[in-house]
Amino acid sequence: MTRWRSEVRESDAAAVRRLVADTAFFNEEEIDIAVELVEETLQCGEAAGYAFVFADDDTGEADELLAYTCYGPIPATRSSYDLYWIAVAPSCQGQGLGAAILRESERRAREAGAAQMFVDTSGREQYRPTRAFYERMGYEQAAVLRDFFAPGDDKVVYVRQLADTTR
Amino acid sequence: MTRWRSEVRESDAAAVRRLVADTAFFNEEEIDIAVELVEETLQCGEAAGYAFVFADDDTGEADELLAYTCYGPIPATRSSYDLYWIAVAPSCQGQGLGAAILRESERRAREAGAAQMFVDTSGREQYRPTRAFYERMGYEQAAVLRDFFAPGDDKVVYVRQLADTTR
Repeated sequence: MTRWRSEVRESDAAAVRRLVADTAFFNEEEIDIAVELVEETLQCGEAAGYAFVFADDDTGEADELLAYTCYGPIPATRSSYDLYWIAVAPSCQGQGLGAAILRESERRAREAGAAQMFVDTSGREQYRPTRAFYERMGYEQAAVLRDFFAPGDDKVVYVRQLADTTR
Repeated sequence: MTRWRSEVRESDAAAVRRLVADTAFFNEEEIDIAVELVEETLQCGEAAGYAFVFADDDTGEADELLAYTCYGPIPATRSSYDLYWIAVAPSCQGQGLGAAILRESERRAREAGAAQMFVDTSGREQYRPTRAFYERMGYEQAAVLRDFFAPGDDKVVYVRQLADTTR
């Protein structure tokens, strides 16, 4: 049974840096961005526009961050949210923790008023498991922006409806 | 003959607020965002990530801002740019100033390394002339994100290739 934590602690900046780097999936610039979102939230609170779900390992001697998500309302939209980050420690992958923390994040976003959750990812081969993960989780491909990140590196936008919208 | 100006002056915050409000096209929140981009640039310079093209009327007694664009590199992309703002004073609309300032902005973006220019707009009826403008200017619809801004208010993403990319 995983306990979720949403409040951000000073120690999370370093913990997120370690976790995101440990996945060996993100470059330096991306890792810096992940940490900045934590730091902005420590400084500005909710006004920063980011919410978090942290999964701590409290079974061991020291608290260790096993997974986290960062999401928030998209400015200038009524009820669209973006999943900015999701990362699971390599030692915990393949055990459903990613699915569980994503569902928990969606539940909290919906409670906060989210009607749909967007997530941007890459069309590169390296991201095939990532795209398959979102598809298993009920996300649909909403757009492909060719060569968005770089030549040959498309942006793929996924979306999942979290609540009924009438139009 | 229009002279373009790219350096941002202190007076541009108020001038952009007036211009954008005069178009009667944007809400208060949007107007505030337009002004914030000017203010961030006054404070941080290029590091803010925004570039501008201003069209001043220097024929009259006082300088007046007739049109402007705001654009810049999209973070974490190699050569994708976003057109954040384009506005033309109501008294100058229908005379090709929008087309001219957009082309000038594209030219400067390309010089700065842009391979493609993205622009987000709305699928609402009010934005039909906006979408037609981008299509006339050679922009192609790259994505439609349903209900993105609000129920019934889609985000429509346009893109124009500014340089050859090989993939």
